[in-house]
Amino acid sequence: MGTAAETAFSPHPQLAQDTVAIGDLALSRLLLNRDANYPWLLLVPRRAGLTEIVDLDTAAQAQLMVEIADVSAGLRDITQCDKLNVAALGNMVPQLHVHIIARRKSDVAWPRPVWGVAPAIAYGDNEMNTLVGAISRKLDLT
Amino acid sequence: MGTAAETAFSPHPQLAQDTVAIGDLALSRLLLNRDANYPWLLLVPRRAGLTEIVDLDTAAQAQLMVEIADVSAGLRDITQCDKLNVAALGNMVPQLHVHIIARRKSDVAWPRPVWGVAPAIAYGDNEMNTLVGAISRKLDLT
Repeated sequence: MGTAAETAFSPHPQLAQDTVAIGDLALSRLLLNRDANYPWLLLVPRRAGLTEIVDLDTAAQAQLMVEIADVSAGLRDITQCDKLNVAALGNMVPQLHVHIIARRKSDVAWPRPVWGVAPAIAYGDNEMNTLVGAISRKLDLT
Repeated sequence: MGTAAETAFSPHPQLAQDTVAIGDLALSRLLLNRDANYPWLLLVPRRAGLTEIVDLDTAAQAQLMVEIADVSAGLRDITQCDKLNVAALGNMVPQLHVHIIARRKSDVAWPRPVWGVAPAIAYGDNEMNTLVGAISRKLDLT
């Protein structure tokens, strides 16, 4: 049984459409963005009605930082990326979500931020399954 | 006396050029971006040679989250903004820095992220001093 706020949580329809769920960390649901341009994960705290990091209680803010760090480290290990981009924007989708994106100097948007630069490219099934499996194992989500 | 890493800290020349220093929190230097398009703050942990949040030690990661939350709350109170944007990108300036930007639905970039959208607009002296003063008082930096 989750808390009332967790029970009421569901991913925003736009996030649900654009991502696949990898699994749940203590606070957040971990999603993979369906865009093969970049290895692009999202953390969505499982609390209903939140739009800002600062609206989480202090303990949840601390846990979100732990999850940002764990996911960042795992994603960097797996992708051997040149840079991580970590961001909570939410101008289009108000539900609180944190982007964690592995950037390469060879990617289509570098050095710009990724948003709005290039149309999403679909993953091949094998490619997506391989990435989701690697992240799941790295974060003990299997 | 700071630690050795703090003693060696200095803001990246690009950050120094683009911002004015407001003051120091426990971990980070707080800067105001010289761009009147948006109330735009930056937190720069005073540790030399860092590029990623995940490269901070765990205690410093936790402190960074406290400072993100405090600055976010203060900036929102002062600006009555519609949305906060919080991001650690660093594709152009590698020194670890966290953007905390007050967004309005009427601003020049909305709903896009701010980076690369519009040339910076200079603040008037009074306008900058008023904003820096308000932030300093809100965060007890005076």
